[in-house]
Amino acid sequence: MTLYWWQQPVKAIDADAQQAAQQRQGQLTKPPGSLGQLESLAIQLAGLQANATPVIEQCWVAVFAADHGIAHQGVSAFPQIVTTEMVRNFARGGAAISVMATEQNAHLEVVNVGTAHDPGELPGVVDQRIGEGTADFSQQPAMTPEQGQQALAAGRDSVQRALDAGSQLYIGGEMGIANTTSAAALGCVLLNQPAQQLVGPGTGLDDAGVRHKAEVIDTAITRHAIDPQDAQTVLHCFGGFEIAALTGAYVHAAQQGLPVLIDGFICSVAALIAEKLLPGSRQWFIYSHRSAEPGHRAILDDLQAEPLLDLGMRLGEGSGAAVALSLLRHACALHNGMATFEEAAVSGKESD
Amino acid sequence: MTLYWWQQPVKAIDADAQQAAQQRQGQLTKPPGSLGQLESLAIQLAGLQANATPVIEQCWVAVFAADHGIAHQGVSAFPQIVTTEMVRNFARGGAAISVMATEQNAHLEVVNVGTAHDPGELPGVVDQRIGEGTADFSQQPAMTPEQGQQALAAGRDSVQRALDAGSQLYIGGEMGIANTTSAAALGCVLLNQPAQQLVGPGTGLDDAGVRHKAEVIDTAITRHAIDPQDAQTVLHCFGGFEIAALTGAYVHAAQQGLPVLIDGFICSVAALIAEKLLPGSRQWFIYSHRSAEPGHRAILDDLQAEPLLDLGMRLGEGSGAAVALSLLRHACALHNGMATFEEAAVSGKESD
Repeated sequence: MTLYWWQQPVKAIDADAQQAAQQRQGQLTKPPGSLGQLESLAIQLAGLQANATPVIEQCWVAVFAADHGIAHQGVSAFPQIVTTEMVRNFARGGAAISVMATEQNAHLEVVNVGTAHDPGELPGVVDQRIGEGTADFSQQPAMTPEQGQQALAAGRDSVQRALDAGSQLYIGGEMGIANTTSAAALGCVLLNQPAQQLVGPGTGLDDAGVRHKAEVIDTAITRHAIDPQDAQTVLHCFGGFEIAALTGAYVHAAQQGLPVLIDGFICSVAALIAEKLLPGSRQWFIYSHRSAEPGHRAILDDLQAEPLLDLGMRLGEGSGAAVALSLLRHACALHNGMATFEEAAVSGKESD
Repeated sequence: MTLYWWQQPVKAIDADAQQAAQQRQGQLTKPPGSLGQLESLAIQLAGLQANATPVIEQCWVAVFAADHGIAHQGVSAFPQIVTTEMVRNFARGGAAISVMATEQNAHLEVVNVGTAHDPGELPGVVDQRIGEGTADFSQQPAMTPEQGQQALAAGRDSVQRALDAGSQLYIGGEMGIANTTSAAALGCVLLNQPAQQLVGPGTGLDDAGVRHKAEVIDTAITRHAIDPQDAQTVLHCFGGFEIAALTGAYVHAAQQGLPVLIDGFICSVAALIAEKLLPGSRQWFIYSHRSAEPGHRAILDDLQAEPLLDLGMRLGEGSGAAVALSLLRHACALHNGMATFEEAAVSGKESD
């Protein structure tokens, strides 16, 4: 039996580099553990980069944009045209992720995997539209299996471009009106939870809007009655093209050994699907932040994730990850740049 | 009656700049509120800098170092000589704060307000030793009123140097073996809490060590029986020279209108004393992180502080603030650099 590409094995972590980094942390001029998560981050990155003194100079940011048929069920505070308008805004440098990519000296690419409208040719935007948005999953599966494979491949190709450019870290982001509805539906099926546990206001629904969104999701889940163990079919039924592309990107990154910094709610759902499609993928994931979108908590818990930031962000686009990138860089700088007790002639603990 | 310099009024926040910044946040191409604390930070900084588009190019970091007589009661995991050794490490660039200052392109000065040993002449270290450490507060007040005034003035002078250099943000840090004991004692008196509520392992005490530390503090508080309302006398009795210097720095920054990024437990205790000495000072404070040192929570609660980071850091030196500086800069970059809905021709909410 032939395996799909996303079933090829995950790259192994370099335990020696990780152990060498751990040892180094214990020798730096500070009480052991006193840099908290910045210590564990440096050690983790050492294992991922197979380098006891890891660095992140080249970072690749890919924002996947697509529309959602479920938007026609009135589940978003913003009209669908905003997805296309925002693709233009990304390209022109006016969006949060555009500003952050410049600020962080990261390469930004936008991959249009299926906006409902044609944004026109734009610099820095890869046109890989699979359709004019997904189908309305309250009526039928969001995408065909062929479309699902196209979307996964679009993500894989983005990671390949990142690798070819010598990137040391990959950040995926997303834009798609109604995509918190898609992500919540995916999360509900995979975690076997009612919609009420995972829905939230998204871009700004009021309480009645959130209740309606939950009803739309619960009804659709009942209608489709998919086996939760079949992550691929779940993805086709409720996913968005951008969520499937993120999934493909994360899987390929784990196979090729490119560390991934996961953004918020939607990206974490893609990470969860990646882990279901290819168990072990999550070893390559670092979680940037806890989103204000309430469903994020359940997804993070299932991934046993410990996000770095909790700033009440809920924008998407990869913006939370782009902010957290600074912490990874600081962790590396401290790890590589601090003197050891021996180098600095500083005394250790009394009991040592 | 002549006022002490630290009783001169706090500078007022610029409400117009703050309101203009708030209005701008509502126009940027994102759902309102979706950048969470990065939005409120930009708005706060606008008010503090009297500039609707705030920036932090020049940041001043001052690390105050001093020793503590209470160290002789066996309350720290590290020997007292480490304070002096770390002053040398700061100067040679090997400490966490040295690395972070370089990383953040911030100016670092070390102010020696009283190490027990003479570190020798060192580049970048201001020698303002008030004594060879404080007296042991389990036996007598830690410092005389004259020494207290000298220490406050050392902090004031540091802020003045920062202002003269055109700094837009001030970070204070500290180094002093046993200074979590001093800080916990100050916090206990000012918040009227038993030591058990505020002590922690500091640089790495075991449980028995923490219990001993709490007993030392409770006994000393009972012995001195200071009026908790008299913050100045409380500071003299239990403080360290570096904690008093931080207090003086924070007060002067609030008077001159230089925003301050507060580090961890010890710096927050100094911030609390600053607020007691000159009510309203805290309007100029931004809280960088929640330390792993357990007493920090009570101090932050009393200051109604919402720290930005919670990474389990507990190193001091200003390291947590130096890390959080990135978030302030990102907040400014997003605030200043993002396009408005009108500029980008992006549609607003359906209901708008």
